[in-house]
Amino acid sequence: MTNTVRAEVITIGDEILFGQITDTNTAWIGTELTNIGIRVVRKTSIGDQTDAILQILHEAHQRADVIIITGGLGPTKDDITKKTLCTYFGVGLVRNETALALVTGFFEKRGREMTDLNRGQADLPANAIYIQNDWGTAPGMWFEKKRADGTSQVLVSLPGVPFEMKHLMTNRILPKLTEHFETPIIKHKMIRTVGIGESFLAERIEAWEDALPDHIKLAYLPSFGGVKLRLTATGDDNTLLDHELAEQVTKVMPLIEKNVFGFDTDELETVVGNLLNEKKLTLGVAESCTGGYVSAQITKVPGSSAYFWGSIVSYNNTVKVTQLGVQPETLEQFGAVSEEAVRQMAEGVRKALGTNVGIATSGIAGPDGGTPDKPVGTIWIACSTDRRTSTRLLKLGQYRDQNIQLTTTYLLNMLREELLNQ
Amino acid sequence: MTNTVRAEVITIGDEILFGQITDTNTAWIGTELTNIGIRVVRKTSIGDQTDAILQILHEAHQRADVIIITGGLGPTKDDITKKTLCTYFGVGLVRNETALALVTGFFEKRGREMTDLNRGQADLPANAIYIQNDWGTAPGMWFEKKRADGTSQVLVSLPGVPFEMKHLMTNRILPKLTEHFETPIIKHKMIRTVGIGESFLAERIEAWEDALPDHIKLAYLPSFGGVKLRLTATGDDNTLLDHELAEQVTKVMPLIEKNVFGFDTDELETVVGNLLNEKKLTLGVAESCTGGYVSAQITKVPGSSAYFWGSIVSYNNTVKVTQLGVQPETLEQFGAVSEEAVRQMAEGVRKALGTNVGIATSGIAGPDGGTPDKPVGTIWIACSTDRRTSTRLLKLGQYRDQNIQLTTTYLLNMLREELLNQ
Repeated sequence: MTNTVRAEVITIGDEILFGQITDTNTAWIGTELTNIGIRVVRKTSIGDQTDAILQILHEAHQRADVIIITGGLGPTKDDITKKTLCTYFGVGLVRNETALALVTGFFEKRGREMTDLNRGQADLPANAIYIQNDWGTAPGMWFEKKRADGTSQVLVSLPGVPFEMKHLMTNRILPKLTEHFETPIIKHKMIRTVGIGESFLAERIEAWEDALPDHIKLAYLPSFGGVKLRLTATGDDNTLLDHELAEQVTKVMPLIEKNVFGFDTDELETVVGNLLNEKKLTLGVAESCTGGYVSAQITKVPGSSAYFWGSIVSYNNTVKVTQLGVQPETLEQFGAVSEEAVRQMAEGVRKALGTNVGIATSGIAGPDGGTPDKPVGTIWIACSTDRRTSTRLLKLGQYRDQNIQLTTTYLLNMLREELLNQ
Repeated sequence: MTNTVRAEVITIGDEILFGQITDTNTAWIGTELTNIGIRVVRKTSIGDQTDAILQILHEAHQRADVIIITGGLGPTKDDITKKTLCTYFGVGLVRNETALALVTGFFEKRGREMTDLNRGQADLPANAIYIQNDWGTAPGMWFEKKRADGTSQVLVSLPGVPFEMKHLMTNRILPKLTEHFETPIIKHKMIRTVGIGESFLAERIEAWEDALPDHIKLAYLPSFGGVKLRLTATGDDNTLLDHELAEQVTKVMPLIEKNVFGFDTDELETVVGNLLNEKKLTLGVAESCTGGYVSAQITKVPGSSAYFWGSIVSYNNTVKVTQLGVQPETLEQFGAVSEEAVRQMAEGVRKALGTNVGIATSGIAGPDGGTPDKPVGTIWIACSTDRRTSTRLLKLGQYRDQNIQLTTTYLLNMLREELLNQ
């Protein structure tokens, strides 16, 4: 078996430390490196200070075979990665003509004037291998540095703009890493569950978990309304690992089948979309407290226009009456947050948009609007098909964002279960 | 002036390294610590391995006055933070009766049975100060450890579940940190811009930036469709710092006024909401390519029901005709992605929902559906009031998520500009 290739990911920028932006890059990089069998052992965020950057570079040089650095490559004065890399490697900056041509072309194409700051983006540390960025003006860079044991460590510097970074990684860096290292095989299998808490899931599969072989690890990853079970197998035989993972899934499935909605990258919205496509059904959505979030989740899926006809977000009660046909008497007698109202919304949106299936939400997302009878977190959901209309009452917490997200998860799962019975 | 209090934030969990979840906790923690004058100097993510956790604890002990650790406190076998802290401090686990009573009550209240795994959550390292978690079963913990120079370092361990962590920080840890340390004053002022690129902004304000005093730093934080300018002032006189920051804002504003939509935590959706409230206007939304995302952004704001009546998401062309009154001839002649169609959508939603203002989107979000005439990223937006209907053509890129987010930003800004003229 080959040695584990160890990677560290370093993000540079005060804005990450101060919490002014949320770092989504390193999660993506982690997934991609894992997929090619490189093990991420540490992720570090560090400020825009030369000495702090130098310190982490020296530390990581001792620990990792690959260092991926993102950020600090912008054209402005607070971006100091390139100068710091020059200090680290003991080299100067050299203007790269290919990079300059690309930057110039980038500005010409957009009919924008180029500034000296932009031209400076074509300057690279003298020992850098230039990695062309087709999607922005900051180039990628690849460095190699000998270590005491004679092996050479790879250091990659990438822009922090997510889509530029992703393109550079996908098209240039990952292939180059695969060529450079001999990596062990790491395989993941993710089981996606919904509607069961972490500790209950753990109790239910305890015997199976205890019997897992040493080279297969299990992790519980809780998220809104669901828990992901991640199996990770390490070895050197691709087919064997796939086979072993499939075998473990077969063993555990009978224990949790009711709560499993998918595997790996499946999301509720894609699973529901596939079911609608398969069964040739169309969907309409009526949203009150979720305010468009359910529709936005459904339409995140490319190709969703094949089954999603549209939504009516009826925040105001008038809209519930005029657009969805909810009866004014129902609103007077039971209120908008009621089983009767949400039922009429789900049935009404089917009729209004002419779809086979209608789903609906009505509730109090908070922080205001609660009453002793109907506290914040009281939310009704409904699913209507040509056979029947089902409703369900959710009693959630006091946090608006969380209530909107959880309601969406439960509603999509309700729709999934209903579609499985169609 | 007091010494800088330096903090490191450590997140524990393979799922973060492998990219299976995106860490949002540390951004939030960074903001909160910064606000109380504690400087975050490093953030590290480390896997669920005892030796890796011990290593970073020893390192951070040398560097930081405060260490905040999140994660690895769940009830399941892969959560090893508590055992590792026992090893680090050389102590054993002791069952905490207050914690046990709380866990027991938590399960009784929900009518759920408690397992041994849950009971184990009340076991704490012997030297831990117990920090009560009212929102979940994993307690917070506060430790102090003497350093060579006689000062004592604070180590805080918190659950990784975001809302539990946030509550513990807000209600227990931040007040305790403020009491424990004498911190310098760090003040931030954020200027939020939209519709101007980073390097153009930098050129425009270069002279002002170069003249900033040493204790006021500037950073450019680009995000979708906008750049945040962050000013950070450090000192020991609260009033003076506020005054100095206000002065700098007054100096720079004339250079960028047209592009500034707000300050600090202002978001386009809150600014637009305030304008609608102020001018007593109501809003309806017609969405095609954004699929509900515009509405979801608007309704993220608590109290948005005061001005937001609702939306019609018309993914299917039939819905554009029946619900929004778009003329079938318009769709035949110009297509749904056209100035004529988006104009009729914005006007139609005002009429359908009975609102003062209507906004609309229609475009090709991608990845499919593009034509040579109308490539992916061709998107029309419109804003209709009782005075006039404005339209604008956006030429965006090829990425679905990005197109949806950028369109929403541009549309909300279009609405903002229109409202300023009302």
